[in-house]
Amino acid sequence: MAELVGNLLVAQSGGPTAVINSSLAGVIQEAGRHECIEEIYGGANGILGILDEQFIDINEEKARTIQGLKYTPAAALGTCRYKLDFKKKPDQAAKDMERLFEVFQAHNIRYFFYIGGNDSQDTSHKIHEEALKRGYDLRVIGVPKTIDNDLPHTDNCPGYGSAIKYNATTVMEVGLDAACMATDDGSCCIIEVMGRSAGWIAAGTALAKRGNPANAPHIILLPELAFEEDKFLAKVKETVDAYKHCVVVAGEGIKNAAGEEIGADKSRVDSFGHPVLGGVAEKLKQLVQGKLNTKTRTVQLGYAQRAAGHCASLTDVNNAFACGEAAVKAAAAGESGSMVKIIRNTQPDGSVKWSTGLQPLADIANVEHSLPRDWISEDGFLPNEKFLTYAQPLIEGEPRFPVEGGLPKYVELEKGLVEKKVGTLMALAT
Amino acid sequence: MAELVGNLLVAQSGGPTAVINSSLAGVIQEAGRHECIEEIYGGANGILGILDEQFIDINEEKARTIQGLKYTPAAALGTCRYKLDFKKKPDQAAKDMERLFEVFQAHNIRYFFYIGGNDSQDTSHKIHEEALKRGYDLRVIGVPKTIDNDLPHTDNCPGYGSAIKYNATTVMEVGLDAACMATDDGSCCIIEVMGRSAGWIAAGTALAKRGNPANAPHIILLPELAFEEDKFLAKVKETVDAYKHCVVVAGEGIKNAAGEEIGADKSRVDSFGHPVLGGVAEKLKQLVQGKLNTKTRTVQLGYAQRAAGHCASLTDVNNAFACGEAAVKAAAAGESGSMVKIIRNTQPDGSVKWSTGLQPLADIANVEHSLPRDWISEDGFLPNEKFLTYAQPLIEGEPRFPVEGGLPKYVELEKGLVEKKVGTLMALAT
Repeated sequence: MAELVGNLLVAQSGGPTAVINSSLAGVIQEAGRHECIEEIYGGANGILGILDEQFIDINEEKARTIQGLKYTPAAALGTCRYKLDFKKKPDQAAKDMERLFEVFQAHNIRYFFYIGGNDSQDTSHKIHEEALKRGYDLRVIGVPKTIDNDLPHTDNCPGYGSAIKYNATTVMEVGLDAACMATDDGSCCIIEVMGRSAGWIAAGTALAKRGNPANAPHIILLPELAFEEDKFLAKVKETVDAYKHCVVVAGEGIKNAAGEEIGADKSRVDSFGHPVLGGVAEKLKQLVQGKLNTKTRTVQLGYAQRAAGHCASLTDVNNAFACGEAAVKAAAAGESGSMVKIIRNTQPDGSVKWSTGLQPLADIANVEHSLPRDWISEDGFLPNEKFLTYAQPLIEGEPRFPVEGGLPKYVELEKGLVEKKVGTLMALAT
Repeated sequence: MAELVGNLLVAQSGGPTAVINSSLAGVIQEAGRHECIEEIYGGANGILGILDEQFIDINEEKARTIQGLKYTPAAALGTCRYKLDFKKKPDQAAKDMERLFEVFQAHNIRYFFYIGGNDSQDTSHKIHEEALKRGYDLRVIGVPKTIDNDLPHTDNCPGYGSAIKYNATTVMEVGLDAACMATDDGSCCIIEVMGRSAGWIAAGTALAKRGNPANAPHIILLPELAFEEDKFLAKVKETVDAYKHCVVVAGEGIKNAAGEEIGADKSRVDSFGHPVLGGVAEKLKQLVQGKLNTKTRTVQLGYAQRAAGHCASLTDVNNAFACGEAAVKAAAAGESGSMVKIIRNTQPDGSVKWSTGLQPLADIANVEHSLPRDWISEDGFLPNEKFLTYAQPLIEGEPRFPVEGGLPKYVELEKGLVEKKVGTLMALAT
């Protein structure tokens, strides 16, 4: 494969995570080792900023800042939920694609890395195909990222391990709180966690049990299984009878048998047309209080669970960084049109070593990887040993990060912008 | 003062905190140094368990466990919200008091330490007075505890520093998340925190700003000031215009000018007759989305904020421990009827050293200490420099705690119970 000399563009997309910047650091630090890569640009706010030619000049940033990205949560380049939507908005998507290549060409972008989830891998795939069609020499490698853990072919998705480490820690602590307040009349605490269609995040909180049925969480409601009110209330009652308290973890996307989301606020949709969720915990609280007359409190972690750098998993940080590194190595070696995947190598002693591989983007785009049914207990209320064996290694290790005045000292990019070469932005789809 | 030989009883009351067990460890470890103190008993679930003669034999616990209490959140002895309510239930309260002294006498309790907030200090005060009236030789010292920070005369309340360290960390992280997602249409994130009548907890999140107006939180709604819808919406709009996102922290107990709690669920009251709160964030979200059409997400930390041992403040841990120690020292020296208070000693270089003192329980009981108006900005939306200078030292330092498999390794008492001597419990007030 002939050496391809040119500039690198990296961008971040979708919901941020505790380790999306670790992947960015991996891309940047690895890029510095390859002579074929000249300038390193960061696209501000994902595809949105790229369309608007907003390129952050990464080589102007301090090495200390790049190093600090490893433990800084949220997307340092900025992110977006904008999508090249060839299905719903084919004209706009075609215009956007035209514009993208105009921008790529003007800045001699030859390496493109998009750090994101399902939609972003789809975008990378389309850009890769378009480059082939146009005969524009471009290496495109997707870098996985999503706390949802729903990308196929990779053992896990960077961001997931940290999210469940934080959530499991929280559930453990809230469980201790609820247990020590437990008196005869009993109480229930409902903790709402993210996860629109896959229960990976909710399931991860089972790690807090440490094998003790008395420990929280006592019930986990997964979006994969239809929510059955009677069965749920019976289980809450049984738990309160046994332990005088019951900690329930509910994935925000749980649905009834008719497929309706329990917590959906039908009045609003996000820019992808998905209904805005929120409110599962509150609805379950009303149910438990109303039907069982059991005092119920709620916790709704929201954004906190995907941004909790202070409680990140070192395994996750390292894997995220390795994915960024591997993407650049693969592209420099001539690969394009793949996503980096994480490979688990279980050792004879049960410990796990991690490596990376590549998977064609065509296999990834818009495929959702759900929690297998046989990783969930028969009654559907807890993941089983198979899941725990899978999830346990993902939360291990604590990154060292600087603290200033009692709070984490996160870094921020200077974000000096490269001069525009193409000019005014055309209207974007809204 | 003549030496008083007998047994020690310590109990925990009200909502648990990240450091209520540090105070317990302080009591226990100090008690071991005094020959006049024979047995060390822990009352299970506060006054409730004491009335039922449920005494945990602390000397049967492992030293390693006692040591581990220092960093274990929630109340290791169990807690309760039961109150000796001489105002609303004088007959029951009189019966309870009779029973208490029967139990104290049967077990030769001569040292009583109640770790708790306002209501618990009131209980301690009544027990102290009753002992004097009866001529029963008893040393009663209150140990302060409340994340609400609303006890008077003490510089701060153990539990508060850890709660605001965790909340400020969360607000900082959620703020980074919201900022990196900020695009032209703007967004709002509302974080609901505890604080029924005092804004100490909400105010503490201002530490996350680190002096930068662009940083979250942009608006803090305090229960001390009447919530004004128009002023609030104008401030949200101004913030979204300036930064494309707005992070609002709302104390759960904020009220309108008529004194009605914005987030009150009037259908339920707790065992003290207070309305059960919850829902401020959701109500503000509906307001911001409905009136400004700004996409809004919520975070509701609930119990997580008072149980977050993994993010405790070392200063708070140490002060909590010192309060437990000081209580025993004072009682052994002959004191009774006081609460331990924390004293701040600001050094010439601006650093802070901490010591403890005593304040008569008569000065404490049922007095609430609110955030001074001159510690809040003129527009009422942020605490000012005076508050920040006060709060900053409280969150400093990180305790070292053991981690197992990626999660904190908290301790649990064996809770072996002492044989009952009095017998069947009379009916409790419900």
